[in-house]
Amino acid sequence: MAADVLDATFAALADPTRRAILARLREGEATVTELAAPFAMTQPGISKHLRVLERAGLVSRGRDAQRRPCRLEAAPLKDAVDWLANYRSYWEESYQKLDALLGELNQNGPDATERDIP
Amino acid sequence: MAADVLDATFAALADPTRRAILARLREGEATVTELAAPFAMTQPGISKHLRVLERAGLVSRGRDAQRRPCRLEAAPLKDAVDWLANYRSYWEESYQKLDALLGELNQNGPDATERDIP
Repeated sequence: MAADVLDATFAALADPTRRAILARLREGEATVTELAAPFAMTQPGISKHLRVLERAGLVSRGRDAQRRPCRLEAAPLKDAVDWLANYRSYWEESYQKLDALLGELNQNGPDATERDIP
Repeated sequence: MAADVLDATFAALADPTRRAILARLREGEATVTELAAPFAMTQPGISKHLRVLERAGLVSRGRDAQRRPCRLEAAPLKDAVDWLANYRSYWEESYQKLDALLGELNQNGPDATERDIP
């Protein structure tokens, strides 16, 4: 997969409004007006975010000249997940260490003290 | 999970040099000098990328004042994968449609033409 495709995908995802737009589009196509409604943002503001999502191939626009409904294109997200999957064993190791630490704290912490009270 | 944590994670991943640094750190800790070696980039250039990775919690630095080795911290990547997992059924649908289209092209394409030749 090309590096610039991953660059565009991750950059597009690095904004809460753009992630919220993608989440809304999981429910189905929507116009810019419909997408702007839940946000304290003007339509030009939403359109700017949509252009970033379109350039990243995450959103396509319908041909109806009046409505131009927006549609989720999820395929580029698979490449992002495939890249991240190479790190799974490393974050699992982090969480195992955290579990072990919490286990130790429980053994030596409040419970242990309670057992010492007659 | 906090939106700004996801913002920082995805923004940190939106650069090929930063992704290459993380890939190198999967093999083990490395100094800035060691990390800079494979890149056509000065040490200050690499240090700038490292600061972005550190702020995103993806890299930590050792305490050895001379070497300050860099270490991969993969835990934030799990949140990114968890967010992306919500879109799995959508990209699987895209790939199924592509498979169906390729299947149709094969049926009606060169092979079909060959069968028509006596």
